Amino acid sequence: MRHTISVMVENRFGILARIASLFSARGFNIDSLAVGETEDPTVSSITMVVPGDDQIIEQVIKQLRKLIDVIKVVDLTGEDRIERELVLVKVTARGGDRAEIMRIVDIFRTKIVDVNPDAFIIEATGSEQKIRGILTLLKPFGIKKLIRTGKIAVPRREGKVGRINA
Amino acid sequence: MRHTISVMVENRFGILARIASLFSARGFNIDSLAVGETEDPTVSSITMVVPGDDQIIEQVIKQLRKLIDVIKVVDLTGEDRIERELVLVKVTARGGDRAEIMRIVDIFRTKIVDVNPDAFIIEATGSEQKIRGILTLLKPFGIKKLIRTGKIAVPRREGKVGRINA
Repeated sequence: MRHTISVMVENRFGILARIASLFSARGFNIDSLAVGETEDPTVSSITMVVPGDDQIIEQVIKQLRKLIDVIKVVDLTGEDRIERELVLVKVTARGGDRAEIMRIVDIFRTKIVDVNPDAFIIEATGSEQKIRGILTLLKPFGIKKLIRTGKIAVPRREGKVGRINA
Repeated sequence: MRHTISVMVENRFGILARIASLFSARGFNIDSLAVGETEDPTVSSITMVVPGDDQIIEQVIKQLRKLIDVIKVVDLTGEDRIERELVLVKVTARGGDRAEIMRIVDIFRTKIVDVNPDAFIIEATGSEQKIRGILTLLKPFGIKKLIRTGKIAVPRREGKVGRINA
């Protein structure tokens, strides 16, 4: 099972290296990782998708809590939450395929953000399921480039079960 | 100046730790980082925003190229490219503020993805400038939570100057 873990960290030098080394040293995998600023300029958010059973995830969270500069670790997997990922896809688009791809883009309410004679660049955001859906439909046309941000998530309500204060 | 660097890596254990440690050991900063899968399941893409002058960026790229499992390093800063970031913002929304916030969401063509009696969760994608614009307008209402993916980028054309093969 894949868990979505949100880690708030002090915006200090080397914190990402400490987290990545922890995963590497303990043999934990990371499927995706998104690091960005938050509403507080001294704090960064790290959203990780980590594969593993409950026991492994418990270990991951325990170890993260021990790190200096880690403020809070929350496993969002069991919570009611909004999850989104952003992808940019460059897809081969020639002749009659162009109209067909535009229909797919419309159905999924995504956007064509660049056009050249041979290809479109499409911007899509959504849940894992939606992104998987659009990529499955675009694949037959030829995906030239696919860049993903990794998933981010926000719980619908605050102060819920599953929150673990580091 | 902030540079946007795209790194393609073999999807192998510990690669993220090696990259993060390199930055930490050499004293290079990272403003944002987005790690995700690509069209090839054996390859992950890492998009980094790195502050520094040309000399520092040159050093960063040289060092990255030396790492095992790094396939390709491209500084996209000088290239014609599509850049996007995704943010989820939970903003306080009560009474008359709700209509006002909905107007801002409309103007920026962003989306309200969750509503509760006190707050909206807004999903926004765009360039750094657009994200900065919407956050500036939302700030006075009270930002309860802000989670960002970090920036990703795709060059409009392939095989351009600025590409450095590792």
